[in-house]
Amino acid sequence: MIDVAQARSDTPGSKRRVHFNNAGAALLTNSVLGAQHAYLDLEASLGGYEAVDQEQAALDRPYTALAAMLNCEPDEIAIMTSATTAWQQVFFGLPLAKGDRILTSQAEYGSNYLAYIQAMRRHQVEVEVIPEDDSGDIDIPALESLIQRGPSRPVLIAITHVPTSSGRVYTAEAVGRVARREGITFLLDACQSAGQMPLDVQALGCDYLTGTGRKYLRGPRGSGFLFASRKAMAKHEPATLDIHGATWTGKQDYELDPTAKRYEVYEMSMSAKVGLGVAVEYALGLGMTNMCERIHGLAALMRRKLLEQPGITIHDKGRRLCGIVSFTLGDHKPADVKTALAAEGINISVSAAPSTRLDFEARGLQAVARASVHYYNTEEEVDKLVAAIQTLSGHPGSTNGAAVT
Amino acid sequence: MIDVAQARSDTPGSKRRVHFNNAGAALLTNSVLGAQHAYLDLEASLGGYEAVDQEQAALDRPYTALAAMLNCEPDEIAIMTSATTAWQQVFFGLPLAKGDRILTSQAEYGSNYLAYIQAMRRHQVEVEVIPEDDSGDIDIPALESLIQRGPSRPVLIAITHVPTSSGRVYTAEAVGRVARREGITFLLDACQSAGQMPLDVQALGCDYLTGTGRKYLRGPRGSGFLFASRKAMAKHEPATLDIHGATWTGKQDYELDPTAKRYEVYEMSMSAKVGLGVAVEYALGLGMTNMCERIHGLAALMRRKLLEQPGITIHDKGRRLCGIVSFTLGDHKPADVKTALAAEGINISVSAAPSTRLDFEARGLQAVARASVHYYNTEEEVDKLVAAIQTLSGHPGSTNGAAVT
Repeated sequence: MIDVAQARSDTPGSKRRVHFNNAGAALLTNSVLGAQHAYLDLEASLGGYEAVDQEQAALDRPYTALAAMLNCEPDEIAIMTSATTAWQQVFFGLPLAKGDRILTSQAEYGSNYLAYIQAMRRHQVEVEVIPEDDSGDIDIPALESLIQRGPSRPVLIAITHVPTSSGRVYTAEAVGRVARREGITFLLDACQSAGQMPLDVQALGCDYLTGTGRKYLRGPRGSGFLFASRKAMAKHEPATLDIHGATWTGKQDYELDPTAKRYEVYEMSMSAKVGLGVAVEYALGLGMTNMCERIHGLAALMRRKLLEQPGITIHDKGRRLCGIVSFTLGDHKPADVKTALAAEGINISVSAAPSTRLDFEARGLQAVARASVHYYNTEEEVDKLVAAIQTLSGHPGSTNGAAVT
Repeated sequence: MIDVAQARSDTPGSKRRVHFNNAGAALLTNSVLGAQHAYLDLEASLGGYEAVDQEQAALDRPYTALAAMLNCEPDEIAIMTSATTAWQQVFFGLPLAKGDRILTSQAEYGSNYLAYIQAMRRHQVEVEVIPEDDSGDIDIPALESLIQRGPSRPVLIAITHVPTSSGRVYTAEAVGRVARREGITFLLDACQSAGQMPLDVQALGCDYLTGTGRKYLRGPRGSGFLFASRKAMAKHEPATLDIHGATWTGKQDYELDPTAKRYEVYEMSMSAKVGLGVAVEYALGLGMTNMCERIHGLAALMRRKLLEQPGITIHDKGRRLCGIVSFTLGDHKPADVKTALAAEGINISVSAAPSTRLDFEARGLQAVARASVHYYNTEEEVDKLVAAIQTLSGHPGSTNGAAVT
């Protein structure tokens, strides 16, 4: 069980805002904030490189903490500036060639899809979308037949675990089982799932997994990570290298770092790197399963209460739902809903078609309001959101206080 | 003229350390440090995305400040997490093909050269090194004849303006004139020159220029920048894109951001981004020419005083020298020199062959001690370094206090 009062006491922003933008960037704990401040002060006092020499233990913590979280070895972890950079370091490092088949998900994140388009243009690869079943989940039999059907074996399956713009969770484990059986590289974008549900890379069966610090992990902006399995590292190399990820040994030669650090662009905000370690350790202390239950329970409550409101449509599709609640309110533009809620001290965000175009086009959506809950949110905050929506829709108090079961 | 007392009063670390590692990461000003602290607090208080909405003006400052510094338009500036990322976003975005010729400098930085090796392997490009003249500068007639001589016209000239490991400054302007005349793309790595000398991209004649925040600009770790000329942007696209740099418009289509922001990986430490703007404005306030004169004068003094010491060899080669002083002391390993100086409160660093292999091999060097001065360093600090070197070499006081003219 999560001690919500303690979690809020650890979270200065929770006293000031109703923060339902955790899928954008979650509120920091005092410990993560304090670690960044302290590290910046040290840099200013000692020098940037000298601070690294002194604080090596703190800079190692994100590797060990993420390895514990993901059930892998610390040398399979790279610390990055963002999930996007992590993903691109893997994708553009693959030896793509004309006719190579890439399988992806309907709800694929926009930045990933932009990379597919670049690869289509540069290498004439083929990108195919794995169909969804009626529930909105990945259709596994369809995936299996897609693999067999084409002119050649796919070289990559790359999916987004939790789409940016709806509450669904794809059953990545089932995709991983197929990928493993068929010997196809599996790259999992866990940007929205890392920190809101347990992730076990062995159970997921992925070769690579990418994530960010700032979202459900409550880490600093400018921090992200990559899991690269030892097996995968033996096959592929990173898209780019620097003198920390590889040693320049001769006119046409280099030696890769033996660990996943080969994927890093070493230079980054070191205070963010230190803060990421603190954030992941904080999450591990609470327990990923506890966090997941609390988040998904609160999101389910929010969906139920919102659905009682006139004009509300919930756009979360899928067998298994998570902490992201996507909705529209009658004819109100989602951007206007966001602005109106902000005036009430409530943070939400807007997801628009270019973030996840295939999914939105298939569902006839242009934009949705996105309220994403975290374990430190409360039932009272859900009620505040509902009340603000009531006011906005012109039905203040119509169902306020009604019991929902 | 630089008011050194004021500059030191603005620099908390200058009271604690003799910092001669400015080519690694310079000491932060109170203003840069304070801007980062304030921004992190705001993020923790409001939310990460909400802080961006509120602080747009502060987040715009690095673009306008860098444009003023480089003599270009703000829409030709991208803010990056590092100089290496900036450089790679340009290089790997070029449409490289088999047999394409790339011309580079003898003192090219290791991370750049690793990219050349990757491009040799992936695209079978040819990388040729522009000879140096006797002074250690780029040999312009040799460059001109290299361009004419090969089987095809080079597609790229990419050089490092100030090498990481010696005090020289390549005359990039002369290279730029040749590149322009011949219509060859010119990418200038200004990682070590940005902030220690005036840089005018029009005079330099470069299509792209990359730099970092943390070195001579005294900005935060995890910040860097790219200048991409409008003309160059009309020809090439970035190596990678995200949904901020391009809009996903259709199954096989995107629209690039009209500005150099197309090169950005948007997600980064926003506090570092804000801090970079403050740092560049601080530099502009002092004046790039003033800073340059002070830095280069102090470095010249350091070279003179070091040269008076027995066993010292200065390895700065070149017609024009800068703030980086590279040296060895008899049989002492540079790493030991660094450690010994650190015990005296003096920060220097070590440059080793893998950082700049072609140059070191040509000069028979394995590693050198690197002392890099900034305008906030003092003549007294130079004396402290010299005294510590005397002690280390077993000749304490031998020339201490001797006048040097």
